[in-house]
Amino acid sequence: MSFSLAAIFETIQPLNPSLAGKARAHLDGLTKPIGSLGRLEDISTKIYCIQEGKKPLRARPSRIYTIAGDHGVVEENVTACPQHVTVQMVHNFLHGGAAINTLCATADIDLMVVDVGVVNKNGPAFPAHPSFISANLAHGTANIAKGPAMSIDTCLKALALGESLAATAHEDGYVVLGTGEMGIGNTTPSTALFCAYLGFAPAEITGLGAGIPVAQLTHKTEVIAKALSVNADAIASADPVAILAALGGLEIAALTGLILGAASRRIVMMIDGFIATAAFVAAWKMAPLVKDYCFFSHASAESGHCKILEKIEEKALLDLGLRLGEGTGAALGIFLLQAAVDSFNNMATLEHAGVILEA
Amino acid sequence: MSFSLAAIFETIQPLNPSLAGKARAHLDGLTKPIGSLGRLEDISTKIYCIQEGKKPLRARPSRIYTIAGDHGVVEENVTACPQHVTVQMVHNFLHGGAAINTLCATADIDLMVVDVGVVNKNGPAFPAHPSFISANLAHGTANIAKGPAMSIDTCLKALALGESLAATAHEDGYVVLGTGEMGIGNTTPSTALFCAYLGFAPAEITGLGAGIPVAQLTHKTEVIAKALSVNADAIASADPVAILAALGGLEIAALTGLILGAASRRIVMMIDGFIATAAFVAAWKMAPLVKDYCFFSHASAESGHCKILEKIEEKALLDLGLRLGEGTGAALGIFLLQAAVDSFNNMATLEHAGVILEA
Repeated sequence: MSFSLAAIFETIQPLNPSLAGKARAHLDGLTKPIGSLGRLEDISTKIYCIQEGKKPLRARPSRIYTIAGDHGVVEENVTACPQHVTVQMVHNFLHGGAAINTLCATADIDLMVVDVGVVNKNGPAFPAHPSFISANLAHGTANIAKGPAMSIDTCLKALALGESLAATAHEDGYVVLGTGEMGIGNTTPSTALFCAYLGFAPAEITGLGAGIPVAQLTHKTEVIAKALSVNADAIASADPVAILAALGGLEIAALTGLILGAASRRIVMMIDGFIATAAFVAAWKMAPLVKDYCFFSHASAESGHCKILEKIEEKALLDLGLRLGEGTGAALGIFLLQAAVDSFNNMATLEHAGVILEA
Repeated sequence: MSFSLAAIFETIQPLNPSLAGKARAHLDGLTKPIGSLGRLEDISTKIYCIQEGKKPLRARPSRIYTIAGDHGVVEENVTACPQHVTVQMVHNFLHGGAAINTLCATADIDLMVVDVGVVNKNGPAFPAHPSFISANLAHGTANIAKGPAMSIDTCLKALALGESLAATAHEDGYVVLGTGEMGIGNTTPSTALFCAYLGFAPAEITGLGAGIPVAQLTHKTEVIAKALSVNADAIASADPVAILAALGGLEIAALTGLILGAASRRIVMMIDGFIATAAFVAAWKMAPLVKDYCFFSHASAESGHCKILEKIEEKALLDLGLRLGEGTGAALGIFLLQAAVDSFNNMATLEHAGVILEA
């Protein structure tokens, strides 16, 4: 295959730290007390570096990819909803009825829905739709409590798919991308990935997902521990791709490829919540420089997310108790990028406005 | 005068708690796990109550009033910037060059600038402008470290002005209003108001404002303590209007009137940061029900704001380290109202989308 992970890793460049100083100098010359726009100034400084000091900064147009896949581990009774909800929600996305549809509209973001691994054997095939990409690689993953989620080959295909989505977005002129996902059960593989990549114990970070009863939490934790045990060889290999194949999901691997592909093209990346952060960590383990291109939109209500963000030394922009996925937090986060970029670009300078801060 | 505070207080109605249950029932029927939109669901529930259960919910059009006034206490050397910056920034607002201009544009909010108390003796008069209201009641307040900021009569006039702004906005069809302010030195009277209304000691909540050197903080704290001492009679009266007249500012009093006027017309109110919260506390002490109509947009970087929000049992929507004022945090907060309302109005129901959450 033409897809080479190594080639992608090589194209991800570190940011030029001297540009950050230039961005700060620009911000300090605007009509406001120095630093008074807080994290909006951090955002515009980072985007200035990502976009190599080109003015004006750009946060538009933006697109969220909401990527759907199913999970064999649902047979372990770890979810609040049955697996068929994944299919039903993809239909809902295509009809414009989901939270991600409305939030993308609010924040002027384009949405693209991708089927990379939905179990859709019984229902009607997804209809052709201008905002839908049919790229199903498998009808869900295998049960990670019994073995690897997928083969290395399938994982590479999902990574390649995600990377190709970034390439398409780049060709289409998008400068900001957001991660979205749909997949009943996907907090379970995500939690397993955090344990494998970051050294957490399952009990430290396992949460209620879309809303399992608290009484089911111990069981979910045990299933994740079992998955880690069954896939111990992959984890011991310390190969991030092998770990992703063993414990991940098709939509998670595709998001990992999306993040890698975005960073390699200097596209600003907005990470959504718990599952998207797992995809990020996989990408980061493969190519540490991806971090320079990513923002973390929100602290998920999924317990553990805050600990994970702390461990990777990132701070979410928002803390609104969201635990919906789909890219909903990313949509709100992208609005903050727009706000930061607009202020950076359009505010008057002290000199131009005749504002003299000294007595 | 025709303005009667008592008459306004009487028109502020409590929210109907049964409507909150109806809003939650609607939200629980949408295509998402129950409660998974977190604080967005709290927002839309509160707006549903404010708007008396009318569908669709509305968060548009919205307007921010950025109200400007100067402060005699600047002669005590408590500020980072000289007083003339207030005038210069009003000109900047009218030229569209300030942060509040750009953030209102980002979030599709209309901006109205009001001069209620700017010291503008030497410079040219503010030009006529469709987004400017010239309503100067005085060239700044008197020095609160030496006596009351203004007379009760002037304070009532500023309250009446603010109330009239809400009336105008209501006539113009606005359903959401945000508070903004500009006034060099206004963290000092705001801090004094928090001490007087909420029982804080100056040292607990005095901060660096727009950026005084840390070495100047003790001095600023002492000036505030002196203001409280000099105006002890007004504080002892426990009359919220007398306290506002003694320690407040013209723009702060006008914002208090705006908040009262918005609540009396069931307009959703977005409170900005530190100074706007002082105006809110004044309104709340006069008419406790105003709280039902207010959202708190962000936790200011001004030290003390978090303690104050905790004391009044409110939680900010955002925590982005902003300390600029002008209404900048309110603009970002109003975007979140739009997001919440759009989701409430436009998401598909489980039934309509054929999403079946049970197995």
